[in-house]
Amino acid sequence: MDVQLVKHRLGNDWVAVTELIGDVLKSDIAILDDTNRSILSHSGKQLRPMLSLLTGRLCSCGRGVNEATIRYAAASELLHNATLLHDDVADSSDCRRGAPTVNALLGPAVSVLVGDYWLVKAVNLILGEAPSDTRAVRIFAKTLSDLAQGEMLQLQMASTVRTTVEDYLRIIYSKTASLFEAACLSAAVSVGACKEYEVAATDYAVSLGYAFQIKDDILDYVGDKKVGKPLGIDILEQKITAPLLGALSNASESKQEEIRNLVRGIVGHPENREEIVGFVLSNGGIEAAKVMLDGYIDKAVDALAIFPDSEEKALLEELARFVAIRNS
Amino acid sequence: MDVQLVKHRLGNDWVAVTELIGDVLKSDIAILDDTNRSILSHSGKQLRPMLSLLTGRLCSCGRGVNEATIRYAAASELLHNATLLHDDVADSSDCRRGAPTVNALLGPAVSVLVGDYWLVKAVNLILGEAPSDTRAVRIFAKTLSDLAQGEMLQLQMASTVRTTVEDYLRIIYSKTASLFEAACLSAAVSVGACKEYEVAATDYAVSLGYAFQIKDDILDYVGDKKVGKPLGIDILEQKITAPLLGALSNASESKQEEIRNLVRGIVGHPENREEIVGFVLSNGGIEAAKVMLDGYIDKAVDALAIFPDSEEKALLEELARFVAIRNS
Repeated sequence: MDVQLVKHRLGNDWVAVTELIGDVLKSDIAILDDTNRSILSHSGKQLRPMLSLLTGRLCSCGRGVNEATIRYAAASELLHNATLLHDDVADSSDCRRGAPTVNALLGPAVSVLVGDYWLVKAVNLILGEAPSDTRAVRIFAKTLSDLAQGEMLQLQMASTVRTTVEDYLRIIYSKTASLFEAACLSAAVSVGACKEYEVAATDYAVSLGYAFQIKDDILDYVGDKKVGKPLGIDILEQKITAPLLGALSNASESKQEEIRNLVRGIVGHPENREEIVGFVLSNGGIEAAKVMLDGYIDKAVDALAIFPDSEEKALLEELARFVAIRNS
Repeated sequence: MDVQLVKHRLGNDWVAVTELIGDVLKSDIAILDDTNRSILSHSGKQLRPMLSLLTGRLCSCGRGVNEATIRYAAASELLHNATLLHDDVADSSDCRRGAPTVNALLGPAVSVLVGDYWLVKAVNLILGEAPSDTRAVRIFAKTLSDLAQGEMLQLQMASTVRTTVEDYLRIIYSKTASLFEAACLSAAVSVGACKEYEVAATDYAVSLGYAFQIKDDILDYVGDKKVGKPLGIDILEQKITAPLLGALSNASESKQEEIRNLVRGIVGHPENREEIVGFVLSNGGIEAAKVMLDGYIDKAVDALAIFPDSEEKALLEELARFVAIRNS
């Protein structure tokens, strides 16, 4: 699937979102304005605003989206990029989307402060001129809390190397699925969707968010260089994700303990990464993670069943399939 | 003046603010909860929530503050600490309030992410259960933008070493006075103050914010170690503040150029800091900055003139005087 095609199909709504993002980020502070434009020029897949607009259209029963939907779509993309700017500082990441990160080019100070700027501009968009839409604001307020906690929870788990599947799901809900949920549910709310449509849009978004992050975590073990960041780096940060959890569940208790000890000592012995990656690949870790991934993709597609057939429904189904097969 | 005394005089309102701050920061993620409590145990002067409560009382014509005032007071303190957590990463600061920073103790990742958490919790408090109070939300939304831009503007100016007094005032408005303004104006709005009271509360807060930052910048040149951070560090980051601007305005053009060149090269030659500090101290830089400081203190006190005499008015006047004479 070509995500550019989806943007094309979204026509003027897509143009409105990208223009709004460009407008709110404009600044008379040159270093800020230049950095913003550089980030926008490597803007990635822009999946979240796409999901907002498609969900908004789907739930609108033909009435189409409105000014609030456009704002929430733009806010979702800004929030996503704000978290990337901060995560790159937290992870000392040098490369993303095939280009050097702001953190690498301009240092952690700029990456933190520009991230704050994007976060704040997202909050401004969510509030709009008058924050009359209480529900959408509450939806995003919850997601803001989730986003702020997701990485912390991951950090906490890293120090124990005792992450369970339940912990992992809580982490990826907080850091990824929650924002997918906000992008779609706020769009549904903005077009006055009925309760059933809201629930379906939420189910779709949350399942897709889980799937997206699981796929990301699989790509960390098997992806190619097009991802724009080095491979196998999650384990260097002691992040225990779906592939390793899957491989561990297939291993004996003594082998599990051996691998956990390698993870525990990885900071002092980064060369052990290869052994851990080898363990994951040869113990069914990728296959187990793919089973998990496919389960969420199916849940996402199933959630769309209550909507009448339409171009938007077909595109949302395609996007779900795309999340599972993407290589970057 | 003893700021503890002000807190004591604020009685149950102060207790409500500190309890609210403690409540919203609670987390079941141990690393986050521990870090939050450690920050709270070195909580500094807590000037902003004090100003909120005093202004709220002053503007309420005896009716007292309400639930919204308490929320805005707590939010102001959370926002302030969020910016400190991020600034410490941006400045690589190791020490603050006489204790090691989160950045030094737990690394930049935790400092960035905990800062995000405090920022997000502040936004949640500003919104409340239902964001019905449009004006207060807009006041804080503007301040969020200012805060996000203030440090960037300072960073931008640092690279040019051409900061003018106007640039300096814009920077300190964005990074400091804007939050003082939001703390006091939101409190005034929360108690239904009349327009004249709102304007007076704003004038007081903005002037005090300018004064507070100018005093901070003076302390960077003359303060003692109780400040909790090394002295003269602003110039190491090429921050041109009131004392240096004052000394430059007293110097010949060729001397100005010489000093600017030292500032321009300070990163490679940190040993030149002593010469710049010496230049500031021997060319009337501190005296010039104090004139500027006193001007803003007077403006702050003058702004209170329209209020009838009361304990709150007297305390706000005292706080303004305290800002000018504090040693840390």
